[in-house]
Amino acid sequence: MVSRPLISEEVANKIKAKIIRGEIQVGERLPAEQELAAEYNVSIRSIREAVRYLVSYHIVEIRRGIGTFVCSNPGISDDPLGFDFMNLDVLYPDLIEIRLMLEPEIFVLAAHRGKKRDFNKAADILKDIQKMNLQMAQSNSAESDEQLYKKFWEYDISFHCCFYQASQNEIANRILPLILNTIRNLYQSPSFKSFRKSPDFYSRHQAILNAVLAKDDDLIRQLCRLHIRSGSQEGKLLLKDQDGFCKEK
Amino acid sequence: MVSRPLISEEVANKIKAKIIRGEIQVGERLPAEQELAAEYNVSIRSIREAVRYLVSYHIVEIRRGIGTFVCSNPGISDDPLGFDFMNLDVLYPDLIEIRLMLEPEIFVLAAHRGKKRDFNKAADILKDIQKMNLQMAQSNSAESDEQLYKKFWEYDISFHCCFYQASQNEIANRILPLILNTIRNLYQSPSFKSFRKSPDFYSRHQAILNAVLAKDDDLIRQLCRLHIRSGSQEGKLLLKDQDGFCKEK
Repeated sequence: MVSRPLISEEVANKIKAKIIRGEIQVGERLPAEQELAAEYNVSIRSIREAVRYLVSYHIVEIRRGIGTFVCSNPGISDDPLGFDFMNLDVLYPDLIEIRLMLEPEIFVLAAHRGKKRDFNKAADILKDIQKMNLQMAQSNSAESDEQLYKKFWEYDISFHCCFYQASQNEIANRILPLILNTIRNLYQSPSFKSFRKSPDFYSRHQAILNAVLAKDDDLIRQLCRLHIRSGSQEGKLLLKDQDGFCKEK
Repeated sequence: MVSRPLISEEVANKIKAKIIRGEIQVGERLPAEQELAAEYNVSIRSIREAVRYLVSYHIVEIRRGIGTFVCSNPGISDDPLGFDFMNLDVLYPDLIEIRLMLEPEIFVLAAHRGKKRDFNKAADILKDIQKMNLQMAQSNSAESDEQLYKKFWEYDISFHCCFYQASQNEIANRILPLILNTIRNLYQSPSFKSFRKSPDFYSRHQAILNAVLAKDDDLIRQLCRLHIRSGSQEGKLLLKDQDGFCKEK
C-alpha cells in the first residue's frame, strides 16, 4: 500500500513548481493565505502547513508582519552540506583537497568563457587591495587590524567569485563560494592574518589574473594550486597527505 | 543596536551543539518537550519553536505519534544545492563538468587510501552485475526492463560510492553521491537504458577497479574520464564545449 501524500505537501509542491517555472519570482511575495486557499481549494490550515514545508526547505521565508517571500537562493540553506556537523580536523584538509581539484579547472574555464566585465571587476578589486597596502605602508590607515583583516577577506572572496561566475558553471558557483566561506571562518591563526596584509597577497592574485587573461591553461593551474597551498600553510592548516595526493600533473 | 536572538533560537543552537558534540547521537530521540523545557528553563512554546527551527534545518525530524529524532544526515536536505530550481539544460552539462573534475581525482585518492574491504565490496557488486548479464543473455530473467534498469542504477551508484568512501574525503562523500543521483534522474533516454544492460557496462567498471587496484594514477584518470564521457553520450547529454574544456592532461 502506497501512502497518499498529504494535501499540504501537494500544495507545497505546486507552489514550488510555480517558482521553478518562474511564475513566482525570487524575492517576490506569495499571495495571501486566503487567496492561496481559494486557488488550491484547500483550507487555510493546509496552506499554513504547506508554507511551513516550503520554509523548511529554504524555498520561502516568513518576514514577520510583512508576508512570505521567495528566498534569494531558493532551496539552499546557509550550511547546505552540513559542514557545521563535521569534525573540524576532518573538514579542514578535506575542503582544501576538493578546492585543489576544482578551483584550478574552474579558473581555466573562466579564462575561456569569461566576459571582459568579469575580468575588469577582478582587476578593480586588485587595485583596491593595492591601495589598501599603500595606505598601510604609510601608516595612514585609521582602521584596526581586525577591520583590515575582514576587508582583505571580503576582497579575496569577491576576487575568486569573479572567476567562478566567469566559468559559467552553475554548480561551481554553488559549491566553491561555500567552501571559500567555510575556509575563511577556519583561518584564524595570527600568521595567516598578518600575511593577508602583505604585498605578496596582492601579487599572487595579480599573477593569476594575468595567466587567465593570457589563457595559459597550464600556468593558471600551477598558480592556482600554489595559491591554495600557500594559503593553507599561512593558515597553519595541515594538508592530508602532504606528498601523496593530487600530485602536480 | 543589535537585536537579541530569540530564546527559541538560542535553545535550538544549544541542542544543535549537543548533537555536534555527539551528546545526542544521530538517529537518537530528543527528550520530551517537558524535559527540554525544564533543562533550558524556558516555556514549552519556546521548545516547540526551537524544534521547528531544527526541523527547518534538517537537523531533527518529527515522526508523528512517536517523537522527535536526530536526522541520519543532520543538516542536509534531499536537495541541498537547490538543483530542483535550476534549468535542466544548464544543470546537465554543468553537473557532468564538475563530475569530470572531481571523480577521477577521487578515484586516485581511493587507490592510495582505500581499504581492502572497500575494493572487495566493489568487486562483489561487479560480480552481481555480471550474474545479471548472464541471466539476461539466457533470457531467464523474470524481471521487467524497468526493474532491471533500476537495479543497474543501484549497482552503479553503490559501485561508485565504494570509491568515494575509500577516498576518505568527507566533502566528496557529500557532493558526489548528490551529483550521481541527480544525473540518474536525468538519464531517461532509451539508448541509455539499453546500454545499461550491455556487457560493456560491466567491463568498463571492471577496468576502473583494476586500475585502482594497480594504483595506476594516470590510467585511473583516463578510464574515469572515458566512463563519464561515454555515459553522457549514451544518455544523449550534450557536454558544454565538446572540445574546449577539461582537456586531457
